[in-house]
Amino acid sequence: MKKTAPDLEKEFLEYVKKMTAYHEALGLIYWDLRTGAPKAGVAQRSEVIGVLSGEAFKMSTSTEMEKYIKELTGTNLNHVNEKVLEECKKNFERNKKIPEEEFREYVILQSNAESVWEEAKKTSDFGMFSPYLEKLVAMNKKFINYWGYTGNPYDVLLDLYEPGVTVEILDDVFAKLRNKIIPLVSKISESGNKPETGFLFHSFRKSAQKEFSLEVLKQIGYEFNAGRLDESVHPFATGLNPGDVRITTNYDENDFRTAVFGTIHEGGHALYEQNISKELIGTPLCSGTSMGIHESQSLFYENLVGRSLGFWKSHYEKLKEYTDGQFDDVGVEDFYRAINESKPSYIRIEADELTYPLHIIIRYEIEKGLFNDEIEVKDLPEIWNKKYEEYLGIKPRNDGEGVLQDIHWAGGSFGYFPSYALGYMYAAQFLNKLKEEMPDFSTRLETGDFVPVKEWFTERVHQYGKMKKPLEILEAATGEGLNPNYLIDYLVEKYCRIYRLNNEG
Amino acid sequence: MKKTAPDLEKEFLEYVKKMTAYHEALGLIYWDLRTGAPKAGVAQRSEVIGVLSGEAFKMSTSTEMEKYIKELTGTNLNHVNEKVLEECKKNFERNKKIPEEEFREYVILQSNAESVWEEAKKTSDFGMFSPYLEKLVAMNKKFINYWGYTGNPYDVLLDLYEPGVTVEILDDVFAKLRNKIIPLVSKISESGNKPETGFLFHSFRKSAQKEFSLEVLKQIGYEFNAGRLDESVHPFATGLNPGDVRITTNYDENDFRTAVFGTIHEGGHALYEQNISKELIGTPLCSGTSMGIHESQSLFYENLVGRSLGFWKSHYEKLKEYTDGQFDDVGVEDFYRAINESKPSYIRIEADELTYPLHIIIRYEIEKGLFNDEIEVKDLPEIWNKKYEEYLGIKPRNDGEGVLQDIHWAGGSFGYFPSYALGYMYAAQFLNKLKEEMPDFSTRLETGDFVPVKEWFTERVHQYGKMKKPLEILEAATGEGLNPNYLIDYLVEKYCRIYRLNNEG
Repeated sequence: MKKTAPDLEKEFLEYVKKMTAYHEALGLIYWDLRTGAPKAGVAQRSEVIGVLSGEAFKMSTSTEMEKYIKELTGTNLNHVNEKVLEECKKNFERNKKIPEEEFREYVILQSNAESVWEEAKKTSDFGMFSPYLEKLVAMNKKFINYWGYTGNPYDVLLDLYEPGVTVEILDDVFAKLRNKIIPLVSKISESGNKPETGFLFHSFRKSAQKEFSLEVLKQIGYEFNAGRLDESVHPFATGLNPGDVRITTNYDENDFRTAVFGTIHEGGHALYEQNISKELIGTPLCSGTSMGIHESQSLFYENLVGRSLGFWKSHYEKLKEYTDGQFDDVGVEDFYRAINESKPSYIRIEADELTYPLHIIIRYEIEKGLFNDEIEVKDLPEIWNKKYEEYLGIKPRNDGEGVLQDIHWAGGSFGYFPSYALGYMYAAQFLNKLKEEMPDFSTRLETGDFVPVKEWFTERVHQYGKMKKPLEILEAATGEGLNPNYLIDYLVEKYCRIYRLNNEG
Repeated sequence: MKKTAPDLEKEFLEYVKKMTAYHEALGLIYWDLRTGAPKAGVAQRSEVIGVLSGEAFKMSTSTEMEKYIKELTGTNLNHVNEKVLEECKKNFERNKKIPEEEFREYVILQSNAESVWEEAKKTSDFGMFSPYLEKLVAMNKKFINYWGYTGNPYDVLLDLYEPGVTVEILDDVFAKLRNKIIPLVSKISESGNKPETGFLFHSFRKSAQKEFSLEVLKQIGYEFNAGRLDESVHPFATGLNPGDVRITTNYDENDFRTAVFGTIHEGGHALYEQNISKELIGTPLCSGTSMGIHESQSLFYENLVGRSLGFWKSHYEKLKEYTDGQFDDVGVEDFYRAINESKPSYIRIEADELTYPLHIIIRYEIEKGLFNDEIEVKDLPEIWNKKYEEYLGIKPRNDGEGVLQDIHWAGGSFGYFPSYALGYMYAAQFLNKLKEEMPDFSTRLETGDFVPVKEWFTERVHQYGKMKKPLEILEAATGEGLNPNYLIDYLVEKYCRIYRLNNEG
């Protein structure tokens, strides 16, 4: 007897719940590995990862899954289940279209490429890494063909991280950003009004940094009942389920900014994951909708809140209480200027708010060129260095601090970088709307009363998980499509003030 | 084409490896839940536990497993794989012989019984709990019949925790223990030479307790590269794999014994799991062979080492360094006597070394009676109280501190208690042999040079995991079967000295 649709729907949800359980277990294992799992057990733990991720993958591409997709598509599912089915279908097709043998080959290639990259970066030896990168690009090109595309082939890769965002959109917004930021960066380089920063680097006890960070986390609305703060070499946030969203940080006793801004950043990610609608638990929709929207939340809190003058007007005295007199002779304005110093630099992850988007645009332009057969891997160091000179006015001294600096390409992550810059633009666009709808936002900044801000985002962003695509969320929240002018205006205004430039923007 | 035996053997091992991976993931989840997982995520985490344990259970009783057992039994497997197959077969039969419906009913009953027990214990209301206990006993009787037995029906339950140990053996050794301990306990009660203990309960900083505990752990050979120490309400040790064996403790700032002896106890368990042969990783043999042998390791370190005079001769000065002058006026002999105070008490888990076995013997006699239809559940409070009066000279004031004190029966764990006392006996028997083979053992105690002790146990106990049964291990290591006289001699000698009694034993 053929199952009725409601029966099949129920069965499908049970199936999906099981897949989700594997992912949650894997999430915990990864968290554990990065926060203090004993080294001697790691090899065996990898076996466990292999089994669980293998099972989850198998379930996502099984004949059962195929049957659910076939038989449930077009039936009268409730809205959530319809989206669940859509998400499963997308993954099914993505995974099934690549021949198994090639996929296996690719996984091995990724792993080898990452090892070689590590060595190549250390020795600044691009020639060592380039055969791997060539192979990675070539395989991704094949995948793009398997998956199929209508517009630009690179769109297919962008869609992996930021569904709905295309080369057409990015070309436009990145051109606007680039054209405004490059001249501003150059004017700042020549400015005679550079902030003093020496006082930032005094000794600041780890335990005190932690206490201050915890206070801020609490203020922005991070729920400790549904999370915890640990330490790891590379800070991260991980949402195992909305009731268990963990963040990590690390502490540099000679630079409190690492932990304080790092914690606020991860806290922003965590607010997103903690406030996804409970009805999505147990489905693949129960996480942030995209890398970019996720980054909009972390950057909103880290930069738009945490690096604002208003925030420090209310928090600077508190911070001072935790120090051993480090800022006694420093006014809040000077402190604010110092933490916002902008200076062209080689390394993306050390870049300031203003120059950061240029690092991303360079990578975007290169990736787009690679996947449109306009750039060859062998020419990357030259192209990279030329762009750094053109956009940032500096030339990397070697490939280690140049084209080899990021692990992403070694892992086969093409199309990922743009999300970082998209996150900035989304954040500024959200901020603009938020100020409109919450006229006392600047007072809140100064009083540290952030709960309504969290609620504003929960209503418009967090709750939906993957129910809506990034641009749908942005449009519904702000009433317009992606508009880079909000970020441009924010940056121009902020940095002209800090560097006392004439704001001609 | 029928698979060749070597192919099938390989396939079987892959299958078993996968099952083991589920158990390792579950082990990590349980560890996490007990060491600080955010409360709000627990409900969803239970779903994950349900999925993973369900899969592992399914695999252990599947038709594939049945096929492996059928086709590989009697073939020329290597020694380890033969034991793996044996273990799988044992579990298969244990699980398959219970009708699925009854098993499900039993799982629900356990869970309900535990909730009711918690309430019943609080209100000392045995009547509230007894219908559940009756049902649990009745279902276990049914299971015993499904599993089948030749000797005493209770043997079947003992075998779950201590394979090879029977009523015949326990009746004999427990009678000997009882006959020696009861008069000794009674003489101690009347002794005029009771130790002073007031100085134990001063304030002792948690961080200092932790540092001292870590030093001792290191001395006994706990590998921190393959483990970590955390906090939990109920201390435990968990071996995820030999490279990842974690322990927990908790701290009472007014009673350092909780953390110090607790850590040494869990450290003993951990040494066992850390030193299982690496060739057993990925199989169900990669854990301690039984509850009792496990307890022999923890009790060896906690009591036979940690509560010995020799140990404190070398460690007392070190301990003092961590205190705020707590023991300045206390000699090591008085300290030693204080930490070994013996006093009949109602609560098993608070009992001292000497009276502890009596608590176990009482439970054993009751369980044996229940499963031989000689005792009825409704009569338990009366029987319990009578035995406490007879053996320990005290009568519980209510059932909360009497028959309702332990969770074990509510969880359906019958046959488990004897392992605690077996652990003591094994430990004393091992100690006797160790002293024979390592004549400088007492010097080692006094110098804290414990690595050769660990190696002695690794060679004779740890490495085998579940490759050997408890009594096989004991006999191979000590040259004889279970002999309670070693424990008796140890207790008589120790306690006569402490209480300055005439040792007529």
